[in-house]
Amino acid sequence: MEYNRAMKKTNRRRVLQFGATLGGGLLARGEEPSRLGKPLSGYGERSSFVKSVRATRQSKTPEAGSSSTPLADLYGIITPSSLHYERHHAGVPAIDPARHRLTIHGLVERPLVLTMDEISRLPSVSRIHFLECGGNSGGEWGVKTALDAQRAYGLASCSEWTGVPLSLLLREVGVKPGSSWIIAEGADACRMQRSVPLSKDLDDALLAYGQNGEPLRPEQGFPLRLLTPGWEGNVQVKWLQRLLVTNQPHMTRDETSKYSDLMPDGKARIFTLPMDAKSIVTFPSGGQTLPGPGLYELTGLAWSGRGLIQRVEVTLDGGRTWQSAQLQEPRFRKAFTRFRLSWHWDGKPAAIASRSTDETGYVQPAREELIAVRGTNSGYHFNGIKVWKVAANGSVTNADV
Amino acid sequence: MEYNRAMKKTNRRRVLQFGATLGGGLLARGEEPSRLGKPLSGYGERSSFVKSVRATRQSKTPEAGSSSTPLADLYGIITPSSLHYERHHAGVPAIDPARHRLTIHGLVERPLVLTMDEISRLPSVSRIHFLECGGNSGGEWGVKTALDAQRAYGLASCSEWTGVPLSLLLREVGVKPGSSWIIAEGADACRMQRSVPLSKDLDDALLAYGQNGEPLRPEQGFPLRLLTPGWEGNVQVKWLQRLLVTNQPHMTRDETSKYSDLMPDGKARIFTLPMDAKSIVTFPSGGQTLPGPGLYELTGLAWSGRGLIQRVEVTLDGGRTWQSAQLQEPRFRKAFTRFRLSWHWDGKPAAIASRSTDETGYVQPAREELIAVRGTNSGYHFNGIKVWKVAANGSVTNADV
Repeated sequence: MEYNRAMKKTNRRRVLQFGATLGGGLLARGEEPSRLGKPLSGYGERSSFVKSVRATRQSKTPEAGSSSTPLADLYGIITPSSLHYERHHAGVPAIDPARHRLTIHGLVERPLVLTMDEISRLPSVSRIHFLECGGNSGGEWGVKTALDAQRAYGLASCSEWTGVPLSLLLREVGVKPGSSWIIAEGADACRMQRSVPLSKDLDDALLAYGQNGEPLRPEQGFPLRLLTPGWEGNVQVKWLQRLLVTNQPHMTRDETSKYSDLMPDGKARIFTLPMDAKSIVTFPSGGQTLPGPGLYELTGLAWSGRGLIQRVEVTLDGGRTWQSAQLQEPRFRKAFTRFRLSWHWDGKPAAIASRSTDETGYVQPAREELIAVRGTNSGYHFNGIKVWKVAANGSVTNADV
Repeated sequence: MEYNRAMKKTNRRRVLQFGATLGGGLLARGEEPSRLGKPLSGYGERSSFVKSVRATRQSKTPEAGSSSTPLADLYGIITPSSLHYERHHAGVPAIDPARHRLTIHGLVERPLVLTMDEISRLPSVSRIHFLECGGNSGGEWGVKTALDAQRAYGLASCSEWTGVPLSLLLREVGVKPGSSWIIAEGADACRMQRSVPLSKDLDDALLAYGQNGEPLRPEQGFPLRLLTPGWEGNVQVKWLQRLLVTNQPHMTRDETSKYSDLMPDGKARIFTLPMDAKSIVTFPSGGQTLPGPGLYELTGLAWSGRGLIQRVEVTLDGGRTWQSAQLQEPRFRKAFTRFRLSWHWDGKPAAIASRSTDETGYVQPAREELIAVRGTNSGYHFNGIKVWKVAANGSVTNADV
């Protein structure tokens, strides 16, 4: 129980110390008139008072680009499907599931064409996993970084996914000896392709058709996507229509000119697919304003493509000292982990950041440490520590790089 | 890994035995023309091909009644917020969170009036819990029971809830000696009230403002509701505006004439608040049709208001024999637990049902066992086993009572 731990720390004293208690006879119940509310509905909508939306960043056409999750508006670890980040290369196709087919062929004994009805009959699993674009927080490589959590780190989201273990179907089709890669292809207009090592396909990859209890959202690949937990989003091909088993990668556009890391020596790292441990403080974070000194709950999200988040530390003084945050239990491998820390702000300027450690012992590096090794040529796979400045007037801004 | 367990059972042989493999040159990729899809969006919507909705049942006014979750359409354990069941007594109020107040008063040292901003600053937790109406599956007491899973058992849903432990605020206001109940009041037009034992409020009750990552949906109490995990939904007062600490229950309408159990001897059980262990097979279930003999994945949901689901057994022969289903891990206390069972249907008539066992050792009873003790005067708190009949033609219907 997180709460009990908090109580122990404070030795069961009152922790809140609200100034304003009940005035003479004021009761909230008298404030609103009695009026019948809205009737029942078939498919509910959020309150009109809730305005949070994805922040979109288009390229030259409105169909290609990305939109980011408002991380600072989230609760818990589940991202509402309507706010899951997007990254499209040719827009969101409107696919009729009754007409959709998945073809599995190439170096296999028994090629298959499957309908969605057939896929939905197969043994399935559900797991909570994050998805993150390989380009998430890419702006942080530069000298002018994003001003809020959404624009800085928001190409990451977390859902309960349901689907069929890909290994099951690969056994069914009979992968031939010598096979080592699978080329996954989407049904979007650009027929986006990525090469996926067979070892991952046989490990924890899913053919996912469910997201947070309902069918995949169109922006996340309805009716079917490849899910390779913990790996960059681009390889988790949406609107999946084809899996070609081969003995080599196809060196597609999105794994050579894009989603690769140009190093200081001019060589590029490619197929850097697992997303390393990362975290961000979402409250307080850029663009917010604290109303004044007092007790707050600092919170944020951490994740690692290599497994479980084991520890998140928070600094309030720009990295001189660190303390462990509470981690929301239960934690899941390759999923968002919510962290929280009670914080009494004394009204003085503060520099706040988090760093996560995953089950491999890997510790999220400072931005400077990352750049010392990787340089600043790359736009991808940034996982450095993100610092927010709290000014004496309560405004929270991006720390100077 | 559920999948690995399945593989062990089948000794790594092929399990699917699809008849239809790839024909001469047919490739799905050639079927659809390339056309740019929809652009990015701020707040996403589901595919227009997905039609699942809540089934509404009104009383004499459209503002009062219930709507049920399409359980057979769900994946995993999270219910999409748009499909969470509803039960309203005076419609869904449209509350401006900036104007909403929670008053805590009565037998306390320091009464409080809190704004939503103040509540959101407090230490919080997130937990996955089911919610179930005390009247869910009430129709099963009768001789003519509901024809599908949604109408039979659909006043139950499961979400990740975020909020403040109520115990924290009760310590802050200083509950006076001799207090034993809290009267919770909603801001809907009927000012719905329920009496809640103080012991529950000090245990795991939350003041919840988050649901599946975003603010509560209006139908579930935006901006604030009481959450008493595992207890009947009616007591988990929505649009919460007042908590009055007292030394006795108020015997409100919804805890005397309603949500109570009239026993065969004419006396009524009241305050039967924890929801007992329950389960239902959602595939195959009433209204569905199996296309023919072959391999299927039977699945369903189980839950208990008293803790963890420890076991779910499935019968395919009307209760003569039972076998254990796989339980989706990780499991959570007082949450939906998804169960699955590989099932090769031989094309003969079958009678399918599930029964759950929770961590207290309690086993979900047969309908007849329940009626032998409780009679059929009550419309509430039915948790008997639900049987579906599969006919030789594949149609699935309600078993005769």
